[in-house]
Amino acid sequence: MNWTRRHILSLEDFTLEEYNAVLQTAASFREVLSRKTKKVPALQGQVVANMFFEPSTRTRSSFELAAKRLSADILNFSPGSSSLTKGETILDTAKTYLAMGANIMTIRHKQAGVPQIIAAEMDKLNSGVSILNAGDGLHQHPSQGLLDLFTITSVLDRESPCVELLSGKKIAIVGDILHSRVARSNIYSLTAAGAEVHLCAPPTLLPKLFLDTVNQQAAGNLYIHWQLKPALTKADFVMTLRLQKERMQGNFIPSLREYHQLYGITRDRLKMCNPTVRVLHPGPVNRGVEITSEVMDDQGLSLIPQQVTSGVSVRMALLYLIGNSSNNSLN
Amino acid sequence: MNWTRRHILSLEDFTLEEYNAVLQTAASFREVLSRKTKKVPALQGQVVANMFFEPSTRTRSSFELAAKRLSADILNFSPGSSSLTKGETILDTAKTYLAMGANIMTIRHKQAGVPQIIAAEMDKLNSGVSILNAGDGLHQHPSQGLLDLFTITSVLDRESPCVELLSGKKIAIVGDILHSRVARSNIYSLTAAGAEVHLCAPPTLLPKLFLDTVNQQAAGNLYIHWQLKPALTKADFVMTLRLQKERMQGNFIPSLREYHQLYGITRDRLKMCNPTVRVLHPGPVNRGVEITSEVMDDQGLSLIPQQVTSGVSVRMALLYLIGNSSNNSLN
Amino acid sequence: MNWTRRHILSLEDFTLEEYNAVLQTAASFREVLSRKTKKVPALQGQVVANMFFEPSTRTRSSFELAAKRLSADILNFSPGSSSLTKGETILDTAKTYLAMGANIMTIRHKQAGVPQIIAAEMDKLNSGVSILNAGDGLHQHPSQGLLDLFTITSVLDRESPCVELLSGKKIAIVGDILHSRVARSNIYSLTAAGAEVHLCAPPTLLPKLFLDTVNQQAAGNLYIHWQLKPALTKADFVMTLRLQKERMQGNFIPSLREYHQLYGITRDRLKMCNPTVRVLHPGPVNRGVEITSEVMDDQGLSLIPQQVTSGVSVRMALLYLIGNSSNNSLN
Repeated sequence: MNWTRRHILSLEDFTLEEYNAVLQTAASFREVLSRKTKKVPALQGQVVANMFFEPSTRTRSSFELAAKRLSADILNFSPGSSSLTKGETILDTAKTYLAMGANIMTIRHKQAGVPQIIAAEMDKLNSGVSILNAGDGLHQHPSQGLLDLFTITSVLDRESPCVELLSGKKIAIVGDILHSRVARSNIYSLTAAGAEVHLCAPPTLLPKLFLDTVNQQAAGNLYIHWQLKPALTKADFVMTLRLQKERMQGNFIPSLREYHQLYGITRDRLKMCNPTVRVLHPGPVNRGVEITSEVMDDQGLSLIPQQVTSGVSVRMALLYLIGNSSNNSLN
Repeated sequence: MNWTRRHILSLEDFTLEEYNAVLQTAASFREVLSRKTKKVPALQGQVVANMFFEPSTRTRSSFELAAKRLSADILNFSPGSSSLTKGETILDTAKTYLAMGANIMTIRHKQAGVPQIIAAEMDKLNSGVSILNAGDGLHQHPSQGLLDLFTITSVLDRESPCVELLSGKKIAIVGDILHSRVARSNIYSLTAAGAEVHLCAPPTLLPKLFLDTVNQQAAGNLYIHWQLKPALTKADFVMTLRLQKERMQGNFIPSLREYHQLYGITRDRLKMCNPTVRVLHPGPVNRGVEITSEVMDDQGLSLIPQQVTSGVSVRMALLYLIGNSSNNSLN
Repeated sequence: MNWTRRHILSLEDFTLEEYNAVLQTAASFREVLSRKTKKVPALQGQVVANMFFEPSTRTRSSFELAAKRLSADILNFSPGSSSLTKGETILDTAKTYLAMGANIMTIRHKQAGVPQIIAAEMDKLNSGVSILNAGDGLHQHPSQGLLDLFTITSVLDRESPCVELLSGKKIAIVGDILHSRVARSNIYSLTAAGAEVHLCAPPTLLPKLFLDTVNQQAAGNLYIHWQLKPALTKADFVMTLRLQKERMQGNFIPSLREYHQLYGITRDRLKMCNPTVRVLHPGPVNRGVEITSEVMDDQGLSLIPQQVTSGVSVRMALLYLIGNSSNNSLN
């Protein structure tokens, strides 16, 4: 297919063709990464600015490595020592990186919508710059959604991962749905792919209002459960989500121990699933809360390392696809 | 010309030949940056140590990108986790980077004179290392002065920017002159170039003592005003300076609002200037204080993005010119 | 020799052949660094993850430059913004970098044993990853020990440094032995090389218990002194150690001034040594405490800059030697 999308802000309106283009490109980069020379000159001369207003080691490292392997030049923005503290607006900070020659900006911000606003401004300026949302508040984390999709479809067909492989598969997403941008991105991609998606969380973390909203997007493929059993029964994949310890202060859950007793993924509970079930988690994991150490360390069950490995291939694919369409008009 | 200056510490004693060498070299790097392959091997094998004792995202990123495009290896010093907190002197820190193989050190420090002291020590050791002052206290910020000069002269002749183009031009510098190392650097370069430089600020930010000092350097070309009108009238360029919000605590200005009313650059006030007037600001900008958003976002008026873009070309030029003269004697 | 050691965790069990392999490889990289093109493609496509849980500018910069000159890709982990604060275990953090494709991890941690635990886990997973201990608590700092060895043996024979050169040499180690991982590493390498090692410190910083432990490892070559004179008399090399100012709070020493009076290295005291004596210090130095400025700045006496310079060559050698044996099984 001919890739035309300039920014990757959300999976809400991704087409099946776009999902498959990402999966196929990522598969070809996985092949590149298995070679001795892991670098391709695809983004030579281009500048990728990693603008993580909300700090992150894991995702930033993954983007950084992906950009390096495409031979891009990288600028890392560090909010602590930045102009923001001196009264500059976020848009002006982004415009400064534009003027410096950035072609792609990966943006993480604790407020939902910041990458969208920057993308709109970049377009208004005819800058040619591409924005990649690396996580905005509780809204979206599209590269995580796509690496989960790549990880799952690669289990089903490592050579030719594609969304069609998910048709009819049952996927449970268990955990703090309410506060998870990862869940929001995955709901779009998995239901679009034709999977049955079963959300499971305590009522405080999976409110009625949330369901009304997403159900409109994913009619027919989305189910909700406040108990684990119906979600896990015959599931092909179980995606667990991080439980942020701060949530306990918000009275969302009575205690981590009680959460684990009701919703923690154990080897025993996985027996309800399809025998080939595999477990995912976006990390960082609270061992013994969302998932037992036994499950996490069982290489036959856990896909967690594969998710991290997929992250580099998928982010190479995203930077490559939007990089070819991007062209900083100032250069 | 044959470039012989090893360190770039201040514009105080720059010759016209040196200004023009920087402008011409920067123009040729601007041409390189417009190509698909933006890298030249000029500093291959050389180490540029960015030693920003005072944090900065903008200037450090600009130096970093410039060094990358010259194929240098880069070491970023982070003061937070440094040996300085363990009792090491700044000179010993610099000597450690020298021993590690640094060829060029870009140095920012909140105390005036630190780059000069390090440069003197490097010379005493016959190290061959070059020091580039990236901003020292209230003293000098030569690379900013040179990128402003490059931006202005490029407006007048993009192909062949040179200082002679500024002869007889009127340039207003408006804002917190007292606390601005940018203003100090620009005063030297612009008056040397034969421009008429009109400083304008409230009396608290432009004291008599300051004028006595700089006037000795720039006799005949420097004018002072405590009101905006005579500074702006028939001006060809208006350079605005950042007003640090901390200044309000020092009682230098009664309020940001009153400052803006008296000294803020608006579209209306710019009508006093030459019709081809262009506006500069070193950033980060406090929108609505030094300058209105309307002026800042008018691409026909504002040169702010061009200043940032020029920064990369000018810093490439500076690193290139001193890099060719530098040769770490330890290697 | 055929290098087979995958991890470099401690010098405790290094063989003479291994010491000499490091010294010879470092000497050949020193020769590379004297050329105009300082890069070799030895680690092209490999990822070096610098995981400094305890911050350090000096050692991290040295490892970073060494890795760059071997053409490796580098990931810098910054603990401040890391997943550790979100409840992830250190082992899971290391496994994340493994999954991202790291081939070598350099690890610094304030707790002794962390690099060992990570190395054991990497082996258990058959990951093929190499761990390089960049300083663990009070335990070991092998790359510092090896760069000291390289510095000393290079004084004796710059072309062909080898451990045999140290046979019968007298080396004094003066300072805070108790809290020094540098001393612990040096004791192993120097006694193995056949040098006479004389430790000297106040009794609080050189307790009986410490001696009993190390004496078992280095029987016959290790001597202890609570006074400076017998340690310095006829010494060929004097290694001074950093006195951390925090130690004063622990009542280990009465005052920095008194410490300097009893144990500080002055030009006068060095007259007791062999006339060709040279002085080392791992840095950062408290001038006037462990050593006078006069001694430190005398290029005929001080080897401190050579130690820093050696650091890059020795770390290139270590990364090269273990890099050739490492092969991330996920790639």
